[in-house]
Amino acid sequence: MNEPRRRGRPVELDLERVAGAAMQMFRERGYDEVTMEDIARAVGHSRRTIFRHFPTKSALVWAGTERFVDSLRSEIAATDPSLPAIDAVRIAYVTATELPPGTHEITRQRLLLIGENHTLHSDGILRFAAVGETIREVFVEREGIDPRGLEAAIVGDAIVHAAHDAFVWWARHGEGEPGPVIDEALRRLGSGFRDR
Amino acid sequence: MNEPRRRGRPVELDLERVAGAAMQMFRERGYDEVTMEDIARAVGHSRRTIFRHFPTKSALVWAGTERFVDSLRSEIAATDPSLPAIDAVRIAYVTATELPPGTHEITRQRLLLIGENHTLHSDGILRFAAVGETIREVFVEREGIDPRGLEAAIVGDAIVHAAHDAFVWWARHGEGEPGPVIDEALRRLGSGFRDR
Repeated sequence: MNEPRRRGRPVELDLERVAGAAMQMFRERGYDEVTMEDIARAVGHSRRTIFRHFPTKSALVWAGTERFVDSLRSEIAATDPSLPAIDAVRIAYVTATELPPGTHEITRQRLLLIGENHTLHSDGILRFAAVGETIREVFVEREGIDPRGLEAAIVGDAIVHAAHDAFVWWARHGEGEPGPVIDEALRRLGSGFRDR
Repeated sequence: MNEPRRRGRPVELDLERVAGAAMQMFRERGYDEVTMEDIARAVGHSRRTIFRHFPTKSALVWAGTERFVDSLRSEIAATDPSLPAIDAVRIAYVTATELPPGTHEITRQRLLLIGENHTLHSDGILRFAAVGETIREVFVEREGIDPRGLEAAIVGDAIVHAAHDAFVWWARHGEGEPGPVIDEALRRLGSGFRDR
């Protein structure tokens, strides 16, 4: 309805630009204060167009993580197959969380927002589950654990939550790249939180 | 309004009975199909009375876990202070998740429901955070880790999610008591998911 009219080809929605603009508004005015209507107006699209790509406000915040599972999966496949699963996952996680140039600040903003908003965090549960499933598969394949057994049921969540918390910690306290922070977090987990 | 009238003392709400009745209805008819109205009618109280104690449907499901943090805290305090934090937490978790006689079936039903419903699971995030905070404190006290450091930021979630998944695994596959399952899960975590 408010769609700017152009002749010829349909209006292309730049998803990253929309998510980026939304993030900035969330940080400036508070996540709960910004409506989808506000975001649509700011980026010059109809609410309907925005909703087609981002069914909820939280989808705008989590948008950056959508390709993460694919990326983690291919990084795992690229590791030395003789490595223990926990180390393969750690190494792959570090590479898969590398940020493209120029995206550090927006990623930091996104993680800070998730870190301070429990509702937003809990909206990530399904995404965490998808990453956890990928991790579980590595353990089944490399360590031969029973796919229906107890260890398979716990290992994905333990790792994905530790890695997510490390990523939020980086956003709050870290300098430079998140890689070394994720690496250190998964090393601590991989030592059973022992041997200091 | 629909409150059954009695003379003299006010109507006492038996919270466990209400939560138990709700659980049974959720399992029989499906969590999404049962309304607060249905539950109120089934237990013979007004919707308002139920809402006063259980502000959401998910609070009825999570009700059983309310005293868990206190219990975990006192079990941790009762462990040998020379034990590594990870082992103190594991031993305390096993004791704190012991089920009172006659509550196994309802606990199993509750965990199955949480295990199959992502929304319900994500409603537990705040409760997980409270348990995670308690775990973090044990590591700060016993291992001297920096309370604002990376390890303190990840250890609580890693353990609480692994333990929760183990509890759900017990509800699905376990026989007898949940204790040995929680114990085994936290031993696997405490070995860094290595040394099979």
